[in-house]
Amino acid sequence: MSEDNRLIVEPRKFKHNQSFRLESGESLDGFELIYETYGELNKEKSNAILICHALSGNHHAAGVYSKEDKKPGWWDELIGPEKAFDTNKYFIVSLNNLGGCHGSTGPGSIDNQTEKEFGANFPIVTVSDWVNSQNLLREELDIEKWLSVAGGSLGGMQALQWAIEFPDKLSKAIIIAAAPKLSTQNIAFNEVARQSIISDPDFTKGDAHPEKGLGLARMLGHITYLSEESMKNKFGRELKKEKIEYGYDVEFEIESYLRYQGANFSKSFNAHTYLLMTKALDYFDPAKKNDGNLSETLSGATCQFLVVSFKSDWRFPSERSKEIVDALINVEKKVSYLDIDSIQGHDSFLMKNDRYENAINSFLEADV
Amino acid sequence: MSEDNRLIVEPRKFKHNQSFRLESGESLDGFELIYETYGELNKEKSNAILICHALSGNHHAAGVYSKEDKKPGWWDELIGPEKAFDTNKYFIVSLNNLGGCHGSTGPGSIDNQTEKEFGANFPIVTVSDWVNSQNLLREELDIEKWLSVAGGSLGGMQALQWAIEFPDKLSKAIIIAAAPKLSTQNIAFNEVARQSIISDPDFTKGDAHPEKGLGLARMLGHITYLSEESMKNKFGRELKKEKIEYGYDVEFEIESYLRYQGANFSKSFNAHTYLLMTKALDYFDPAKKNDGNLSETLSGATCQFLVVSFKSDWRFPSERSKEIVDALINVEKKVSYLDIDSIQGHDSFLMKNDRYENAINSFLEADV
Repeated sequence: MSEDNRLIVEPRKFKHNQSFRLESGESLDGFELIYETYGELNKEKSNAILICHALSGNHHAAGVYSKEDKKPGWWDELIGPEKAFDTNKYFIVSLNNLGGCHGSTGPGSIDNQTEKEFGANFPIVTVSDWVNSQNLLREELDIEKWLSVAGGSLGGMQALQWAIEFPDKLSKAIIIAAAPKLSTQNIAFNEVARQSIISDPDFTKGDAHPEKGLGLARMLGHITYLSEESMKNKFGRELKKEKIEYGYDVEFEIESYLRYQGANFSKSFNAHTYLLMTKALDYFDPAKKNDGNLSETLSGATCQFLVVSFKSDWRFPSERSKEIVDALINVEKKVSYLDIDSIQGHDSFLMKNDRYENAINSFLEADV
Repeated sequence: MSEDNRLIVEPRKFKHNQSFRLESGESLDGFELIYETYGELNKEKSNAILICHALSGNHHAAGVYSKEDKKPGWWDELIGPEKAFDTNKYFIVSLNNLGGCHGSTGPGSIDNQTEKEFGANFPIVTVSDWVNSQNLLREELDIEKWLSVAGGSLGGMQALQWAIEFPDKLSKAIIIAAAPKLSTQNIAFNEVARQSIISDPDFTKGDAHPEKGLGLARMLGHITYLSEESMKNKFGRELKKEKIEYGYDVEFEIESYLRYQGANFSKSFNAHTYLLMTKALDYFDPAKKNDGNLSETLSGATCQFLVVSFKSDWRFPSERSKEIVDALINVEKKVSYLDIDSIQGHDSFLMKNDRYENAINSFLEADV
């Protein structure tokens, strides 16, 4: 596709003016969600797909903001004309979640009660809260039922939650590189990330972009998104300079890469949002209400499921996706499962891959 | 073994009064090494074993300092009467490495040039520097040849380096849970640990025990020492309190455990030492001088080798040990290799395990 065929997109806002009760028991006076749409809603309103984002994602999933814009949305490889999520056929909705820092109500928004930024006072939000707020967006868009709800990682957990909480509001759930709940190790990594933010004195002083702490959290996160093999292929043990200098300046390419990723991220991302997102991940455990029985939790689901994992993903390994698949099979749900050879680790879900794209495409095409 | 049979041990010091040139090109005016010995040196001086420690280890590998002492040395499970390293048969030497913070010359020592603590000015030390300083200790103890040099993790790398650098000074090398060089991912984790120390303002101000930064480094390290399975078995998703409180206080047991480990460690360990140890790990790459050819690097070794890995170790997975084994086989060295079923991850090397203990015992018993 030439550059001229790129989608030119524009974000919009949905404003909910009523009080919104959260799972924690706290309430928001109301909220705004920023979102984008790609493709056209058909007359029957039967071709709408909701895209849910992961930890550091946002509403800008595809396209560019102008012809000059060089940086397309985060899932542009998969969303667009003739792509896996084909915008010639589907009407795609992508939002920034509650608590986010890209335009939806979050820690950077003004709290009407105090007339100051929420900051650390923004209430904890959960996957269930997100799905509930997304359901209000669905009503606003006058869509009776999503053709599909889709997402990778934390986004996949939202798709799973949709199937549980609003079974008659989606026909197909696409759950990619996700897990039915975090492992102990996942929580442990999140905790180190949180502590690196919370212990940064700049953060304590009120800086929502603490360069060091948020940078560290991102560096650490980044290691878990990449496979050992892809890191090795990309950086190996290559030195940044000609030879070892025996000191603490950047020496290996991987150090330089991680420092850059950390510094860059901390400029643009809100530290409170990062904390909120990691907590939403830790708390996610839909089967908890059924004493850990995921099959029972999923027994009321009516949609079709596509579950996708990647063999080199060690953040949410294939076994975690299989837990979801097994639970669905146990209660005789329609589920297709794909475990894809890809060396890119958890980040594979963001990238082009024929088998992956074809699977999404066919699953969306199949009769409801 | 009843408590009364515990080894009562006492550290000693070896003082080297001449200038000691380091791999980096810098020199130390001299140095002290603190060490302990367990068992008796025989008349032929043929039963001496050198134990090398890992990243956060020290010279106190076995025994206790008094009958009241409740905390034995870090490898007490394996060193003692009738244990894997049987002190009824062998004379065991364990030291704190140069750059350490438990009594050997390191960042906390006084620099004669400035009459102040070395602190950040302590020169970078490498595995080769350690082996060279250990060789001076060998001379001091009047031991012509070690029966064995043994260690786990970074300690195993020292055993490997001994076989390369002083082939006629050891009969047997025991290399446990190690690797011939760090992977990109290993370096990446070390870099995040270093950045968390370096970016702590307390450290910048000169505190060698920056609670937050060093604590974070330790928390992160700890995750990589444990397997996913052992973390799950130990902590699962158990909550510290009765129910979720939706906040940033400790909620999951694993959070509590990691925070405790981090806080505890940062009180007793020197942050400069931690930085030095991680750099020694990153730089370790004995095959570099032979353009990456490990077999060629090992071609001059004359000792017997025992290589041990643990199946759940994801810090230095079994494949990394197999690289060492394959390189040794390539140049027809005598090598025994054991890949042990153990769910404790990298930390397995510190723990009792019948197959593991028997292997060490038999290897030490076998004819030279």
